[in-house]
Amino acid sequence: MKNVLVAQSGGPSVAINATLAGIFERAVTSLEVGRVLGALYGIKGVINDNIIDVSEKLSDPNMIKQLIHTPSSALGSCRIKLDSADINPKVYEDIFNTFRRHNIGWFIYIGGNDSMDTVQKLVTYARSKGIDDVCIMGAPKTIDNDLCGMDHSPGFGSAAKYIYTTFSELWCDCKVYDVPAVTLVEVMGRHAGWLAASSVLANVHCDAPHLIYLPEVPFDNERFLEDVREKISENPAVLIAVSEGIKYANGAFVGESEQSGITDVFGHKYLSGAARTLESLILEKIGCKVRSIDLSLMQRSAGHLASSNDLTEAKLLGVTALDRALNGISGEVSIINRVSNSPYSVSYGTVPVGEIANKEKVIPREWINERGNFVTAQMLTYLTPLIGGDFGIQMRHGVPLYIDLH
Amino acid sequence: MKNVLVAQSGGPSVAINATLAGIFERAVTSLEVGRVLGALYGIKGVINDNIIDVSEKLSDPNMIKQLIHTPSSALGSCRIKLDSADINPKVYEDIFNTFRRHNIGWFIYIGGNDSMDTVQKLVTYARSKGIDDVCIMGAPKTIDNDLCGMDHSPGFGSAAKYIYTTFSELWCDCKVYDVPAVTLVEVMGRHAGWLAASSVLANVHCDAPHLIYLPEVPFDNERFLEDVREKISENPAVLIAVSEGIKYANGAFVGESEQSGITDVFGHKYLSGAARTLESLILEKIGCKVRSIDLSLMQRSAGHLASSNDLTEAKLLGVTALDRALNGISGEVSIINRVSNSPYSVSYGTVPVGEIANKEKVIPREWINERGNFVTAQMLTYLTPLIGGDFGIQMRHGVPLYIDLH
Repeated sequence: MKNVLVAQSGGPSVAINATLAGIFERAVTSLEVGRVLGALYGIKGVINDNIIDVSEKLSDPNMIKQLIHTPSSALGSCRIKLDSADINPKVYEDIFNTFRRHNIGWFIYIGGNDSMDTVQKLVTYARSKGIDDVCIMGAPKTIDNDLCGMDHSPGFGSAAKYIYTTFSELWCDCKVYDVPAVTLVEVMGRHAGWLAASSVLANVHCDAPHLIYLPEVPFDNERFLEDVREKISENPAVLIAVSEGIKYANGAFVGESEQSGITDVFGHKYLSGAARTLESLILEKIGCKVRSIDLSLMQRSAGHLASSNDLTEAKLLGVTALDRALNGISGEVSIINRVSNSPYSVSYGTVPVGEIANKEKVIPREWINERGNFVTAQMLTYLTPLIGGDFGIQMRHGVPLYIDLH
Repeated sequence: MKNVLVAQSGGPSVAINATLAGIFERAVTSLEVGRVLGALYGIKGVINDNIIDVSEKLSDPNMIKQLIHTPSSALGSCRIKLDSADINPKVYEDIFNTFRRHNIGWFIYIGGNDSMDTVQKLVTYARSKGIDDVCIMGAPKTIDNDLCGMDHSPGFGSAAKYIYTTFSELWCDCKVYDVPAVTLVEVMGRHAGWLAASSVLANVHCDAPHLIYLPEVPFDNERFLEDVREKISENPAVLIAVSEGIKYANGAFVGESEQSGITDVFGHKYLSGAARTLESLILEKIGCKVRSIDLSLMQRSAGHLASSNDLTEAKLLGVTALDRALNGISGEVSIINRVSNSPYSVSYGTVPVGEIANKEKVIPREWINERGNFVTAQMLTYLTPLIGGDFGIQMRHGVPLYIDLH
C-alpha cells in the first residue's frame, strides 16, 4: 500500500495544523492509504529525507483534537524557492527519490502562493519525466488572505478575529486619558491589506479604529496628517490601523526608511516599520502623544482566539486536497467558495495550481472608501462570518493545550 | 444620605474595573450609602468636578457582570502627581469642595503606588484641616505587581496569564524553522521584573522561554551574548523574555540608547527599547536571524485572557476598601494576603497608605538563579495560582463583550 506524505511551508498560521489534521483523518478512513508521513521543515524535509511517521505521533484521538487548534506548523516550515529543473535537476531527483524510498502515492503541500510555486514545479517536472505514480496537490494557507481562486484563505479568519479582539481591547486602553493621543497599530500584509482591514470588525462595537490605511491605496503624508488632525479634533484618542505594506505613489514603502533593505529569497523586501515611521511623522508635525504598536507574530499564532469557522474550513480543505489526490488528480489546489452569507455556507473544490501560484489577490478598490482611509460596508459583510463559530478548545488554567509533532 | 465617590488612576489593567464593580456592589447593599458617583479621568475629575452617576449607568445587573471583565479604566484615568498642600493649596480646596458639593462621605481611589501618594496627601490635608466627614481609602491596582504590603497586586495575574499564553504561542511560531533564530520579547516592568518572570509559566509545558532577564540583576552584554550562544548551540530557536527595565551595573537602562530621554511627571524615564537594543547587539556580535517583539499595551488590556482568580480578588479588594471606609476608617489601602498555596486561599485586610505609597516591591534575589538569567521554582510556585480559575466571560462571536461608562 502506498503512503501519504504531507509538508507545511511558509509563514505559520493558526489553522495550518487543522489542514494537516484533515489530511490525516481522510487518510485513516481510506482503504488505499498505508501510513501518513510528514516531511519536517517543508520541502527541505523531502529533499533531505527528513521524514517522520505522523500516524505514530497521532495514535491518541485526543492528540488530533489538540493538533487542530495548535498554532503554527507542527511539522516545521521553510521559506525556500526551488530553482527550475533546468538549472538544478538534482533537487528534483532528490525529492522524487524520497517519494520512491517511502513509497509515496500522494504528496500534499500546505502553504501560500509561494509554496504553490513548489507544487507547480514538482508537477511540471513529474510530467516532463513521465512520472505518474505520485499525485501532488496543494492545500492553501495564509493569514494574508491574498490567495487567488478562492473566497478566502484558511488562517485569515483566525488572524482577523485576533485583530478584531485586540483593537477592541486596545481601544479600551487608549481612550482612558483626556489628552490628545494617537495610537498606530501595524498589521501584517505586504501587498494586500485584508488583515489591517479586518480591524473594522472592532468598529461595530466601539468607535475605533478611526482610520485604516492599506497598501491598495497610495499613501500620502499630507493627507494622512489632515486625517489625523480631523480625528483628534473630534475625539482626543485616535486609534489607527496601518498595513505594513503601505506605500507612496512612487511605490516606495512607507516603512522602508526604518529598514535594512534586506530581501528574502522570493525578492520581497523585509518590512517592519510603517507605524514607527508614521509615529515619527506625527511627533514632528502634530506634536501630540503618539505610540506605535506592532502586532508582530501574535497575530498569526494566537491559537486561543482561533475562529471556529476557520479551523473547520482549514480541516475540510485538507480533506478535499487528499480526497481529490486519492481520485488520481494532481497539480491542483483545494479551494473554498462562499455559497451564502446568511446563513453562512461554503462549498469546497479544487483549481489548477497555476491559478494560485505566485499570484496575489488584493482588496477591490470599491471596498475601500473614496478617501482611502477606511473600508466600506461590503468589507464588513465579507469579514463577519469568517470569525464566527465556537470551537471547543481544550484548556488548562484557561489556556489552550498545544501539541508538538517533532 | 451621603454618597460614595470612586476614581481610577495610573496605567490601566484588566482587573481595575472589577474593583470598581466590587465597590458598587458593596455600596448598593448598604443602607448608609445614597448613590455611587464616579470622577472621570482620575483625580482630575475630582479637581474639575467632572462627576458621573455610576448608579444610573449600572442599572442593569448584566452591565455589572460585563464591567468586571472589561479591561482598562471605565472611568478614565490620569497620571498626575499632586503638589503638596504647602505649594498648591488651591487644588486641595477644589477637591474638598467637590466632595462637599456632591455630599461625598467616602472616596475610594483605585490605583498603583503613585496613585496612593494622592491618597496619602489628601488624608494628610484633611487631618491638618480637621476635616473628618469624608473617609478616603485606596484600592490597589497594578499589572507590575510591585506594590508593597500585599502578596500580589490585582491586575498582575491577568497580565501574567496573557504573558504565559503569548509565550506558549510565540514558541509554536518561533521553532518552525531549522535555522538559528533568536526572538526577544520585551515585557513591561520598570524596576520590578515580575511580569517578565511570569513567562516562566510557559516553560512548564514547552521548552521556552530559554532565558529571562530582569531589572533586579545588573545586565552585562558579554554574559548575555555567552548565554545566547550557549542556547543556540543546544537548539536553533531561542526565545528570550526581557524586562523593559533591565539596566547595566552603572544604573543605565539597556533600552536608553533607543530613547528620547523624556521623563514622566513622577520622574520615571520613558522606556521602550531594551529588546530592540539587544536585537542590534545580537545582529552585530552573533549575526544570526533575530527579531524583537514588544507586548506593549496588549499585556495590560487583554480582557479575553483575564485570570478568574485575579478578577475575583480585584472585586473583593474593592468591597474591602469601601467596607472599611463605611466603618469610619480613612487613610488605608485594601490588601490581599496568601493563606495557602494548595489549595490556594487568600484573606483580605487593610494597611496604612504610607506602607504602599511611592514604594516598590522587587523580586527576592533568591527567586532568581545565580547566573541571573532565569527564575527558580519558588517563583513558579508563587505564580501558578494567580492565573487560575475560570470566569464566565460574556461573549459574542467568541470575543468578550465590553462596556463603557463615559
